[in-house]
Amino acid sequence: MKLVTFTRDGSQPRLGALGPENRILDLTGLAGDDPDFSSMLHFIDAGEAALKQAKQWEEQARSGEGPAAEHLIDSDAANLLSPIPRPRKNVYCVGLNFLSHVEQNATALGQAIEIPDVPLFFSKPVTAVVGPDQPIRLDPRLTSKLDYEIELAIVIGKGGTWISREDAMDHVFGYTIANDVSARDLQFRVSQFLYGKGQDSYCPVGPMIATTDEITDLNDVTLELLVNGEVRQSESAGNMLFGPADAISWLSQGITLEPGDIITLGTPGGCGYQLTPPGFLQDGDVVECRATGLGSLINPVQAV
Amino acid sequence: MKLVTFTRDGSQPRLGALGPENRILDLTGLAGDDPDFSSMLHFIDAGEAALKQAKQWEEQARSGEGPAAEHLIDSDAANLLSPIPRPRKNVYCVGLNFLSHVEQNATALGQAIEIPDVPLFFSKPVTAVVGPDQPIRLDPRLTSKLDYEIELAIVIGKGGTWISREDAMDHVFGYTIANDVSARDLQFRVSQFLYGKGQDSYCPVGPMIATTDEITDLNDVTLELLVNGEVRQSESAGNMLFGPADAISWLSQGITLEPGDIITLGTPGGCGYQLTPPGFLQDGDVVECRATGLGSLINPVQAV
Repeated sequence: MKLVTFTRDGSQPRLGALGPENRILDLTGLAGDDPDFSSMLHFIDAGEAALKQAKQWEEQARSGEGPAAEHLIDSDAANLLSPIPRPRKNVYCVGLNFLSHVEQNATALGQAIEIPDVPLFFSKPVTAVVGPDQPIRLDPRLTSKLDYEIELAIVIGKGGTWISREDAMDHVFGYTIANDVSARDLQFRVSQFLYGKGQDSYCPVGPMIATTDEITDLNDVTLELLVNGEVRQSESAGNMLFGPADAISWLSQGITLEPGDIITLGTPGGCGYQLTPPGFLQDGDVVECRATGLGSLINPVQAV
Repeated sequence: MKLVTFTRDGSQPRLGALGPENRILDLTGLAGDDPDFSSMLHFIDAGEAALKQAKQWEEQARSGEGPAAEHLIDSDAANLLSPIPRPRKNVYCVGLNFLSHVEQNATALGQAIEIPDVPLFFSKPVTAVVGPDQPIRLDPRLTSKLDYEIELAIVIGKGGTWISREDAMDHVFGYTIANDVSARDLQFRVSQFLYGKGQDSYCPVGPMIATTDEITDLNDVTLELLVNGEVRQSESAGNMLFGPADAISWLSQGITLEPGDIITLGTPGGCGYQLTPPGFLQDGDVVECRATGLGSLINPVQAV
């Protein structure tokens, strides 16, 4: 099931599912007053029963049966937001999680290659999150080295602590795409990533959340980032050093994960600062993040 | 005005003010159904008008006039929580913000002394926040180097971005105490602080928020941390390299601050890993963080 958050005619954000012919099934409308379908976070909180109900409705909509089909909306009548427009906390991130990125990072910074033996966690504030088509802010007062990083992200369904690697996937609600936008000059000025990676708009997430049954093997998921149509990053998500189960198992050792938590899982090589000459983002650029089965997350770069 | 969040007889968290004879004025009870007084975050959101009303009630309670005096509660009938039990996002922190700490950190790690020329921001997840008397978790599976850091913290009243240094204090609602608990082995294993400083219970905050009018000069505020009654850290908050106005002005450059945001402002020297021999926290230890005018934040260390 592929879930989205959208507005229509200036409405409050609503929960939807991708239906037939790329139309959006308005789950919030279909569910009437049921709060479980009033937002993505409520839906995730509601667990299996709500998901099962939504799947039934989606099937009905596809077959044209029952009231579900009456709640299908043409995609151009809906404005997609980030699937979780306002997460309840920071977005967790894993750094240096593809060998290609580790190597190119070391080369770009003139450092020795060190392959992490434990996941490198950091985080972005919730104020950094934006959705599809929302601009990535290029503020010349702050940076002249604005950069991109396509990442696969997981959304936690069931919270917990000390989650084992074996049980970890039972705690995942679904997958989405994130762009770990980074101002390299700010990032490398100090030891901690927060300021250089946590600026407003530096965390595009979307356009949908695909539930875990949609993606059975990450080796089949290609992460691809394009700037103005030119491919800059392209690698299989299966190449992650620490996969979703590793990340959950490590992070939840002592840090309680909660429903709706987002964990981004690192980027392949090919970032702007790793290219010769460097390829930083400029005003007017369009950044597209594609991942197999997860659609395309497109954000323009806008000088402010 | 000194504000607290408390429960009484298993109630939901309520907003209170310290009244005469250390009794607590139950502002939530006094305000009846007014949502502005239903929690600390609602109260902060409500701004000047709510604060003015609360001050009037506090004066009435002190003078024994009107209905306010009837809402005074003996402090031992109230269970204090962290002033904002569940912040809306990560807690922002400034690292390496006292010269004493910078020097002792360099000595402990065998590094050259480097005085930061910009604030070093990092953050802790909201799940790390605990209140007075709640245990700091000592998990031997994770750490044998559990450590403390007393910090002055500010709570944002009025949000904003690109807040100037001159205007910054207008955006501060008040001050509180934080303990930036850190597992040094986890912290120094990787470059990013999140995992070693972001564990559950690693961010005690409290016991109260004192509004800015209560503290006019940070040179008058002594930060003092005691382990089992022994003073380990003691220094004037006036010695911070980057004060509250600096921190707000830097952090808000591109990162939108919101009402209720907490920013902790760094710790003096004297941390456990900086002592010879090291003085890490052990099961059963009691950590007390005192700051002039802000009371005492006491947390036991508990092996799990």
